[in-house]
Amino acid sequence: MKYFVSPYNQSVDLKFPEKITVYDTTLRDGEQTPGVCLRTPEKLQIARKLDELGLHQIEAGFPVVSREEKRSVKAIADENLDAQILALSRTKKEDIDTAIDCDVDGIITFLGTSALHLKHKLNVTPEDALNICMNSIEHAKDHGLFVAFSAEDATRTDLDFLKNVYNKAETYGADRVHIADTVGAISPQGMDYLVRELRKEINIEIALHCHNDFGMALSNCISGLLAGATAVSTTVNGIGERAGNTSLEELVMTLLLIYGVDLDYNIGVFYELSQMVEKLTNMKVPDNKPIVGKNVFRHESGIHVDAVIEEPLTYEPFLPELIGHQRRIVLGKHSGCRAVKAKLDECGIAVTKDELCKIVGMVKEKREEGKYINDNVFNDIVRSVRGPFEF
Amino acid sequence: MKYFVSPYNQSVDLKFPEKITVYDTTLRDGEQTPGVCLRTPEKLQIARKLDELGLHQIEAGFPVVSREEKRSVKAIADENLDAQILALSRTKKEDIDTAIDCDVDGIITFLGTSALHLKHKLNVTPEDALNICMNSIEHAKDHGLFVAFSAEDATRTDLDFLKNVYNKAETYGADRVHIADTVGAISPQGMDYLVRELRKEINIEIALHCHNDFGMALSNCISGLLAGATAVSTTVNGIGERAGNTSLEELVMTLLLIYGVDLDYNIGVFYELSQMVEKLTNMKVPDNKPIVGKNVFRHESGIHVDAVIEEPLTYEPFLPELIGHQRRIVLGKHSGCRAVKAKLDECGIAVTKDELCKIVGMVKEKREEGKYINDNVFNDIVRSVRGPFEF
Repeated sequence: MKYFVSPYNQSVDLKFPEKITVYDTTLRDGEQTPGVCLRTPEKLQIARKLDELGLHQIEAGFPVVSREEKRSVKAIADENLDAQILALSRTKKEDIDTAIDCDVDGIITFLGTSALHLKHKLNVTPEDALNICMNSIEHAKDHGLFVAFSAEDATRTDLDFLKNVYNKAETYGADRVHIADTVGAISPQGMDYLVRELRKEINIEIALHCHNDFGMALSNCISGLLAGATAVSTTVNGIGERAGNTSLEELVMTLLLIYGVDLDYNIGVFYELSQMVEKLTNMKVPDNKPIVGKNVFRHESGIHVDAVIEEPLTYEPFLPELIGHQRRIVLGKHSGCRAVKAKLDECGIAVTKDELCKIVGMVKEKREEGKYINDNVFNDIVRSVRGPFEF
Repeated sequence: MKYFVSPYNQSVDLKFPEKITVYDTTLRDGEQTPGVCLRTPEKLQIARKLDELGLHQIEAGFPVVSREEKRSVKAIADENLDAQILALSRTKKEDIDTAIDCDVDGIITFLGTSALHLKHKLNVTPEDALNICMNSIEHAKDHGLFVAFSAEDATRTDLDFLKNVYNKAETYGADRVHIADTVGAISPQGMDYLVRELRKEINIEIALHCHNDFGMALSNCISGLLAGATAVSTTVNGIGERAGNTSLEELVMTLLLIYGVDLDYNIGVFYELSQMVEKLTNMKVPDNKPIVGKNVFRHESGIHVDAVIEEPLTYEPFLPELIGHQRRIVLGKHSGCRAVKAKLDECGIAVTKDELCKIVGMVKEKREEGKYINDNVFNDIVRSVRGPFEF
């Protein structure tokens, strides 16, 4: 058995769409994380690994931002990966022409639609906004591109206006509309309502771009998919503006193990992909990051270690090898005899029961003095109990 | 206006329980994070701040683990905080007596109930397990303690057996039963089903202890509360075993702003509390941690910065001062004229339009060369365009 999740997940009959498209935006929204800057070779490296995973679509960048950014997007498009390559563009002809120059397969063109964005960002009336955005869709379609139209801040936009905007985007030839939960301010119940309302009027695909400001990006995506959306935006390690985006590895593993929906990805590369993005973006993966964090398969407390040695699934929902991760047993104040014994066995050291008890006591004491129990500290403890020897 | 979330959150009528109890386990499950070790003065400092927040219950530790741990729990109980102080104990008389020695207000006594835990951890039959745990509840009640009984790995436990265990706990006098989603392996839909099933048979309070292995701890708690649970376990910054627990600040802010449920906490201390726990546990708060991460109110990209200068709520769901956090504008490759102009204004430097354009171009170039745009780098750029001057 490689995983064991709650049987109650099957208690309700849930209908996911037959085909779910993931479009990853690590290279665009992820790169917009303050302090992150990826150059062409780095973007290429990540794009190749996303392709190895089997991803459907890669949002490669926002080419109008700078010359280097344009070079990166073109280089990725020139790689001829299996994934479709998309570029972000405002609803300006100039942006779309820059994307066309990059030879991408498609664009995501966006416009803030909430009253707040129209007033304070764009300084236009709703009517003007409708006219602005639609010509650009036609222009892109004329050049044979896949076109997604994204309503920025859609989740805080008036429903009638939002329906109007999406309807018009559909009329002008858009292939997909995106609901951007730009400040991560919707609930799963709200997303369910919004998608169902839109599904009544929109005949093209609906995609979700969820931010994680309150910690519900993943659940909002799941909820939107159950309501009829068919595409989802993600980033590796959940990086991105502010609290970041829906995490790619969390979405894929949740769909696969919790909901039984297999996107047919090569999930064995997740840990490697996560480490690569950590290194290239210099954004540390939190130790307790779901799926790919260091602590996720690390056990210290006596009760947990004892059980995990006997059967890992007692304290792991799935085995680390599924995603190329590794289990580690560490020693600390909550460690018991079995963890210490396992560590001694690993080093090939036999001790008496009495010696073992002394060693366990000293490990706890050292840890409570603030010392981290690394190999040197552990060896010193064992030597002080058993006398000198070679490890 | 201090916050602006999605109006669609109100589209469905949701019934939360009238009173929701939060019991925070930063000092117990949080401290079980591999590598974390809190000594008495540190635990006291965190307990006082949790009390300042207005928390209902604090799980102070697992006193049988070590002498120092027992000292910590007793010291917290002796503080006479407004919050009730709870201690963790196995279903052993020895553990409960140790908790009683600490003068705590109550205990959480736990037993693994899934087939996996019974077989591989406890090596007992289900029948034996039922007998083991219940005498200890009586013993604790005889000493006047509040008693919560937690079924560890409840979400992977057979429903009939789980009902039996909880029923028996209720009969023996338990005040509350806890559903522990020990490996974070349930879905919000599964949690809804499970709580509703248990609600039919259990007359005492139901609490939720959710782990975040797939990234859904918060949503699982929300789902469980909507189904009839009335208490939730959290940790500051979401620390804890593996991927950690439901994050206290995410739960409270989500209930307050997304769902309109006010727990009447002093939320202005959240950022300070988060920083304190980061420092004392040496567990870095991820930059993109919802609510309290550094990036959550940090803006770099031109489009975002321009809008945020005009009206912060365009790219923030709530203002940072609500939780004692701060906004920051940083410069990078996605920065535009307005961000650079704001930075120059801050320094009291007037530039021509032409100079501004040059400075913006150089900021992007430097960033793409891999340089982080700190004050020194920025000053050098400005000097190279405008000639020498004093900042």
